[in-house]
Amino acid sequence: MEDDEADETPKGVVMPGRHSADRRIRVARPNSAYFRYEGPGTVRAKREAIAPVRRGEKLSTGLRQLVFGRALATDEEGEERLSKLKALAVFSSDMLSSVAYATEASMFTLLGAGTVAFRLTVPISIVIVAILWIIVISYRQTIRAYPNGGGSYIVAKDNLGTRAGLIAGAALLTDYVLTVSVSVAAGIAAIISAFPGPLAPLRIELCTVAILAVMLVNLRGLRESGTVFAIPTYVFVVATLGLIAVGISRALIGDAPHVTGVVPASVPLESLSILLVMRAFADGCSAITGVEAVSNGVPAFKRPEAPNARLTLTMMGALVAIMFLGISVLAGVVGAVPAADHETVMSQIARATFGTGPLYYLLQFATTGILILAANTSFADFPRLASILARDGFMPSGFAFRGERLAFSTGIVALAFLAIVILVAFGGTVDALIPLYAIGVFTSITLSQAGMVRHWLRVRGLDWRRSAAINGFGTVATAIVTIVFAVAKFALGAWLIILIIPVIVATMMFIHRQYERRRLETRVRPEAIIPPPTRHQRVIVPVTEVTRDVVQAIRFGRTMSEDVTAVHVTDDLARGEELRERFNRQLPGIPLVIVESPYRKLVRPFVRYLEYSARQNRDDLIVVILPEYVARHRWERLLFNENARRIRDELLGHPNILIAQVPFRRHL
Amino acid sequence: MEDDEADETPKGVVMPGRHSADRRIRVARPNSAYFRYEGPGTVRAKREAIAPVRRGEKLSTGLRQLVFGRALATDEEGEERLSKLKALAVFSSDMLSSVAYATEASMFTLLGAGTVAFRLTVPISIVIVAILWIIVISYRQTIRAYPNGGGSYIVAKDNLGTRAGLIAGAALLTDYVLTVSVSVAAGIAAIISAFPGPLAPLRIELCTVAILAVMLVNLRGLRESGTVFAIPTYVFVVATLGLIAVGISRALIGDAPHVTGVVPASVPLESLSILLVMRAFADGCSAITGVEAVSNGVPAFKRPEAPNARLTLTMMGALVAIMFLGISVLAGVVGAVPAADHETVMSQIARATFGTGPLYYLLQFATTGILILAANTSFADFPRLASILARDGFMPSGFAFRGERLAFSTGIVALAFLAIVILVAFGGTVDALIPLYAIGVFTSITLSQAGMVRHWLRVRGLDWRRSAAINGFGTVATAIVTIVFAVAKFALGAWLIILIIPVIVATMMFIHRQYERRRLETRVRPEAIIPPPTRHQRVIVPVTEVTRDVVQAIRFGRTMSEDVTAVHVTDDLARGEELRERFNRQLPGIPLVIVESPYRKLVRPFVRYLEYSARQNRDDLIVVILPEYVARHRWERLLFNENARRIRDELLGHPNILIAQVPFRRHL
Repeated sequence: MEDDEADETPKGVVMPGRHSADRRIRVARPNSAYFRYEGPGTVRAKREAIAPVRRGEKLSTGLRQLVFGRALATDEEGEERLSKLKALAVFSSDMLSSVAYATEASMFTLLGAGTVAFRLTVPISIVIVAILWIIVISYRQTIRAYPNGGGSYIVAKDNLGTRAGLIAGAALLTDYVLTVSVSVAAGIAAIISAFPGPLAPLRIELCTVAILAVMLVNLRGLRESGTVFAIPTYVFVVATLGLIAVGISRALIGDAPHVTGVVPASVPLESLSILLVMRAFADGCSAITGVEAVSNGVPAFKRPEAPNARLTLTMMGALVAIMFLGISVLAGVVGAVPAADHETVMSQIARATFGTGPLYYLLQFATTGILILAANTSFADFPRLASILARDGFMPSGFAFRGERLAFSTGIVALAFLAIVILVAFGGTVDALIPLYAIGVFTSITLSQAGMVRHWLRVRGLDWRRSAAINGFGTVATAIVTIVFAVAKFALGAWLIILIIPVIVATMMFIHRQYERRRLETRVRPEAIIPPPTRHQRVIVPVTEVTRDVVQAIRFGRTMSEDVTAVHVTDDLARGEELRERFNRQLPGIPLVIVESPYRKLVRPFVRYLEYSARQNRDDLIVVILPEYVARHRWERLLFNENARRIRDELLGHPNILIAQVPFRRHL
Repeated sequence: MEDDEADETPKGVVMPGRHSADRRIRVARPNSAYFRYEGPGTVRAKREAIAPVRRGEKLSTGLRQLVFGRALATDEEGEERLSKLKALAVFSSDMLSSVAYATEASMFTLLGAGTVAFRLTVPISIVIVAILWIIVISYRQTIRAYPNGGGSYIVAKDNLGTRAGLIAGAALLTDYVLTVSVSVAAGIAAIISAFPGPLAPLRIELCTVAILAVMLVNLRGLRESGTVFAIPTYVFVVATLGLIAVGISRALIGDAPHVTGVVPASVPLESLSILLVMRAFADGCSAITGVEAVSNGVPAFKRPEAPNARLTLTMMGALVAIMFLGISVLAGVVGAVPAADHETVMSQIARATFGTGPLYYLLQFATTGILILAANTSFADFPRLASILARDGFMPSGFAFRGERLAFSTGIVALAFLAIVILVAFGGTVDALIPLYAIGVFTSITLSQAGMVRHWLRVRGLDWRRSAAINGFGTVATAIVTIVFAVAKFALGAWLIILIIPVIVATMMFIHRQYERRRLETRVRPEAIIPPPTRHQRVIVPVTEVTRDVVQAIRFGRTMSEDVTAVHVTDDLARGEELRERFNRQLPGIPLVIVESPYRKLVRPFVRYLEYSARQNRDDLIVVILPEYVARHRWERLLFNENARRIRDELLGHPNILIAQVPFRRHL
């Protein structure tokens, strides 16, 4: 390497005035390929300003944009809104897909008291649909009151306080993760049931691939999600409605289909107790999970957002009510029963009604499709909720940043990671988790409704008495359901959710305290006027050798003060004197103080010396300039000592000492 | 928290002249509890300057000094030198302890051809002793030529080049680690043989505790090592010499002791081939390992170092020769045989000669003791060699720093760690490694001798022809032995050593390249005179809010230049304008440029803007001052973004841009 200092020699003395005169123009009008002039003191970065310049970065950026599409500007967001039809597909898949297993889950519990207990299936389903409608009507009020997105977190926090909001938020975050794991596992299980031979050994791999695929689609952005997911959702809806129509029609004309050749699953027998009915009810309520999605996602709708969202929510409630009740009724008509070979009740009904033909397979594939798409609902909501929590300082700020495609990339990736971890931990079979996430959902719904009651009492406005009554009734109903769940399912896993939610809440409050502390530490009174500095300042530079990083730091210090001193800490006085000789010769005018450190410590004696200097010169500000050679790689930190960092940490917060690290690296 | 800016308001304008006048005196004469005035521009830190000041540090320092003793100043080193008697104990234990197993190792191999092959034990031992003496005489020359410590690394590097030196160094470092593992495992195995019941399940734990104990003693410093280790070494020497004297005497007076009740070990039978003899010879040569220790450790001797070291080496050679030959002869006299129940040959001889009385147990305990102490030899030499390699830039510089007690703490801890890892990996039984480390030893001895031949041919001096002849003969002899080892033991593990040494050498050369690159990057020509800076400089500060860290950075910039500009990058123009309003009000005179970043990236548009500014103002130096809130804990980095670091990394090395990070943290 050539050892020249060309770039450090002066290019001629410059009159300070000349530059100040034309500075403002230069600042405001960069006539450049990268910026557009927007007005005095404002420029707008063009796309070129975020383009990579290094070869390696160009390649990786090119590959990334091939997968995810080009970067989107913030004001391109309008294009990404959802029509009602697409919104229904994106937000309803969680709820609609539960039709595929909710009836069966309820019947499976009832089977414990014998098939005679199945006469309770339809009554239980009617109660569940009633609760569903109470919730739908309640949430219509929420959308009206919170047109910018009224997730349980926001509603509970606004009206019941931070802690209630965080409980709702933690419950929802947990649910979103469980929804992804459970839905994907169930969807993959359905494919495996159809083709058990080749796919059975690949269960976890298939689940992981499915989650990663949904993740990638979501990282690309919202609009594509709507397009990709609309078709399978509507195929499932049409096929299921057709199934119900054909089945009921055949029953009415006296040609009722009948299930044949099914061996009932063997379950532990018990008597038909209240607790059993409560558990069957809780299992059936898995049909209601996902109702939160629409009110959470109001801002993703096309304008006018709130009315579109209300209509979508109502459509969704109606569809689920018809499909869930229809399947429950048909299950009784055809004599379906939870089967020993794990053929689903839904499949039994379809086989009896359609026969094992193309329509049957279409419904099975659509079922698989919508179960995997259900995971997508969480990929829309988890990152959104996380970003709101991050904005409020309860989660790391990275969750609030939007990626190149306007998606909350951190939340999307975190959700995929957590869901995969749970899937792997449970070996790809997560049946036990299905009834669990309903607890979290109902906890957050209850808090949300209670918050809405407070909201109406506080805000009043149009029809507030009616709205308050609706939400009040909703609160009582969902609170009862939540208690029923907790009691009926406590030993079966509810305790886990009841344990995890407080831990998440505590973590979020801890994170909030950190951000709050930083805010207080760095807070400047809004009315304070900060004058130019007038105190005398002494500059001290610790030096080890006459090297470029040291020279740069000393030149830096010289621009700040006439009073620059170099300090050399060493246990070897002879080498210190050699350095002094070289120093005096090469850096004339900079006194060098040698601090002999017989105990070979470098940092502490230097810090003591500075403190001593600071005490001696009470009115002065001591500026410590730390030369710092910056290693190119993290592992190189093992090779180059971190004394600069250690000195910094020791001196930080000392009232009369100001620190500046002057990093050095040279392009080779 | 009170939000006051008291510490930032000016304390009155200060005339620059007043301070400059009396500065030099204040710098040179800190009349303080921490420093002593030593002369103009030089102070010496007192012990108080390294004392901890924070409560938590006081406690940990107190505990540390309780275990390791008070910190020692560099000039207290003289006290820590070794007398000849102590040096013999410290440096010889590796070699002397091998007497406990070398004869048996050789006989075990011979047993393959039947007990009749034992007639070769004494001849082989004589050859080994002859080679030992060739080496001892060779190393006496080395000590004469290298009074400051002539390890194989130094000798080979000085005379044969860096690569030869590194090969010798790598071989030695490997050997030191193996010596610790093998010796401690053998020592613990001896205790366990005596008391198998309670101790057998704790083999690895006992080995680990023993290594940690030796490590602690060494961290305390060299002198204590000598004292602690002298007694068991001399007990072993006296007991072994007594054993040989009694045994030979009884044989001479016709009352030869005889071993009874030993079942020979069962080994695969083979014919008495040359290869078998070679292997038996190689196994016996484990008696020679450790001869390097003295010449490596010359600087640890009391003055005059070289003559004391030569005498110690000769004494050591004589002792090993007598003890090794004596045991080999006695083994034949008493009819000892490697036993099926793993009673050692040494133990058989002692039992036959002394009976199972106090003398027998004394010898057994001393054997165990000296085997563990053998590890200590490595704890003296590994850190010393590592420090030399670190000084030359072939190992991380931390290995060259001496701790509070003047020991090379990093090397000591690294050695203990590696030895424990090997022990755990091999489950505490490392018999297979015993013959391996002889290969490394003989490799380094050969390189060292060859280097000495070059040395004498180059330097000449007193008696150089004689010395060159001795070292030349040594080179040939040890080279032959090394080749015999590699051939005889290749399939039995020698390949592993032959593989590891080049990897270590490559790593050391890689590390050296990193240090060399840094040296070249930061090199300043010794004749260059560096003038005060004269270029106009513009200061640019990236800002996100009006916070204390930002205010501090701007005040900092104002002391450097009249030309300070704040730049705010945002994707939200409205918030940007709010900030501008606040900025203009609170920091009058500092223009704020808003860079709108529609793609939400912060770092890249800022960097592009700076580059643009740098191009526009070719003659100016642009100083970028990065405000940096410093998190208190490492995990907090997850919460606070690292934009300052990313901006720094992007800008480093740009010719007209200088960077300063101004860290901020406030004591709460």
